[in-house]
Amino acid sequence: MPIVDVHTHVYPPTFVELLRSRTSVPYIRNFPDAPDSARLVILPGEDDPSMPSTSRGRPIGPEYYDIAQKIAFMDQHRIDTSVISLANPWLDFLPSEEAGEAAKKINDDVEEQCARYPGRLYAFGTLPLSAPADTVVKEIERLGSLNHMRGVIMGTSGLGNGLDDPALDPIYAALEKHEQLIFLHPHYGLPASVYGPRASEYGHVLPLALGFPLETTIAVTRMLLSGVWDRFKNLKVLLAHSGGTLPFLAGRIESCIAHDGHLKKHGKIENRRDVWEILMANIYLDAVIYSPVGLKAAIDASGADRLLFGTDHPFFPPLEEDAKEWHSVTTNYGAISTAFPGKEAAAEDVLGNNAVRILKLHS
Amino acid sequence: MPIVDVHTHVYPPTFVELLRSRTSVPYIRNFPDAPDSARLVILPGEDDPSMPSTSRGRPIGPEYYDIAQKIAFMDQHRIDTSVISLANPWLDFLPSEEAGEAAKKINDDVEEQCARYPGRLYAFGTLPLSAPADTVVKEIERLGSLNHMRGVIMGTSGLGNGLDDPALDPIYAALEKHEQLIFLHPHYGLPASVYGPRASEYGHVLPLALGFPLETTIAVTRMLLSGVWDRFKNLKVLLAHSGGTLPFLAGRIESCIAHDGHLKKHGKIENRRDVWEILMANIYLDAVIYSPVGLKAAIDASGADRLLFGTDHPFFPPLEEDAKEWHSVTTNYGAISTAFPGKEAAAEDVLGNNAVRILKLHS
Repeated sequence: MPIVDVHTHVYPPTFVELLRSRTSVPYIRNFPDAPDSARLVILPGEDDPSMPSTSRGRPIGPEYYDIAQKIAFMDQHRIDTSVISLANPWLDFLPSEEAGEAAKKINDDVEEQCARYPGRLYAFGTLPLSAPADTVVKEIERLGSLNHMRGVIMGTSGLGNGLDDPALDPIYAALEKHEQLIFLHPHYGLPASVYGPRASEYGHVLPLALGFPLETTIAVTRMLLSGVWDRFKNLKVLLAHSGGTLPFLAGRIESCIAHDGHLKKHGKIENRRDVWEILMANIYLDAVIYSPVGLKAAIDASGADRLLFGTDHPFFPPLEEDAKEWHSVTTNYGAISTAFPGKEAAAEDVLGNNAVRILKLHS
Repeated sequence: MPIVDVHTHVYPPTFVELLRSRTSVPYIRNFPDAPDSARLVILPGEDDPSMPSTSRGRPIGPEYYDIAQKIAFMDQHRIDTSVISLANPWLDFLPSEEAGEAAKKINDDVEEQCARYPGRLYAFGTLPLSAPADTVVKEIERLGSLNHMRGVIMGTSGLGNGLDDPALDPIYAALEKHEQLIFLHPHYGLPASVYGPRASEYGHVLPLALGFPLETTIAVTRMLLSGVWDRFKNLKVLLAHSGGTLPFLAGRIESCIAHDGHLKKHGKIENRRDVWEILMANIYLDAVIYSPVGLKAAIDASGADRLLFGTDHPFFPPLEEDAKEWHSVTTNYGAISTAFPGKEAAAEDVLGNNAVRILKLHS
């Protein structure tokens, strides 16, 4: 049985060059106080000049851009195939006129990386979302001609106004028409103020553990409320981190909709596909949730045949220098075995068969 | 078997008077464009003067302050006993010098309401959190002398700086010493900006369905990270809305802690009680989650013996005028029967036995 990792990021050389050329977030830099150590600063709030460079962003080494290291990581963790994707913040920050060419270059780079390791690498492409819609649609069409592309990765910002922006409709239409799945991934988190005055004492825990999943949940709920899936009934979306918190909150979301006087007055409660229907027909979830409790809720919400193993590599490396296997990976392996006691077939589906079937790998 | 509702709010007459005397959030007012209909405006962002009064806040009627209506609601929904609590935003907004007396009056009001219906009503008291700590501690001690008080309700703001504020330590110590449970409830939500430019089209869904649970999750994670439960090993907290999203995200929280270089450098990863231990020893969850998926995750995280039925009455009334039972209540009843197929005893524990045991009701 194959093991397939659908949540695994790369910064291809073109993208690393781009980040090295920049001086504001996102960027890569060797700071004067530690000139031999490159830092990757990508998150809002990571770029605090009052902090020593070793606290800004994270160290970046070849595991981020050398595809041979991805393959070594896969071998180490018994992963047969990875569906790689550009890591956040993708091309969201690029000026409109640069985005189209940058996306082409990066997608070609990634396609070339995949071609070097037949059967082992596929990818989600990157869209030039700051470019005009027809440039985006053209890139979606072009991705269909690249043999290893199996969808696109997208942040929650869309064209800058969220994924409930009606201006995205031609893009959703093109993705639906060309059967390109969206891998929806957080990046922007929540405003720093929500974490309170002591947040910096807690490292990156609050924005990473809570901000990311909450961002995803808000984005997908906005898609739901704006009727994206009523207009695009076949649009498929793979949600990072097991849906953020969507499986757990789906009931509350439906209850709040059903009890909302404003929605009722505008006829928006009836005649819509509800969140449970979308979870079972349009949404896939990765299995990056680090506990059997969360994983079981994800299974209950979407079905074990819609859940896909992932690692989030190269993020969350072990802090111990002598660690062989990554805890962040073994925790998710462990959750899958615990969630399916005595049901090996279901576990194998989550580990790889679902991805092969849904993403048409090896075909 | 008894049915006990642990999440059910009142605005006792003293509090209604207080809100009627105010002109900024929170307040109660009869607006000139609809003079016969009183509106309760309590949430940040509900007070938009450009909106018609019928879109500001919510209508408030006797179901909010007439305790006979609470009893009628309980009879209608087969609820034997309710543990009532002042609704948000409690006394968080009061000037320091007024809070102590206001809390006494409201707690006495509520105690008197409970005494009128022997065996049917208990309560969580209200603390004067804007007053000096010793005033708060005195009210905690005084609550012990009121026969129907079974803990205190608290928002996520604490003394204004969150529940990870070390200034709360004397209050946590007093609550622990007097075995008073905290019912932790959201109110402040998230900044409106996170919901995007179309949020107003979605009624109150985003702040209520997502903002509230996320606020609770952030608050309790800050308590965890600041070591509140390492210092107060017997402090008990009942989390509203099944913990916000804590059961689902607990694994990610632990993984982010274990992989945080800053926490490791400061020796904060080892020698602490982890979230799973706290969930099984210090945290109780209500069963206000509106789906079997969420409820099962709550059970998996905390145990079926720590889950307590609730309604959130008088919020989320049915929109249909002729509805007899409230959907918001029957959905939670339904989730409990679905979550325990064939295990009637466990369902009965969640519906009432747990509350009787944990809150020492009828004794």
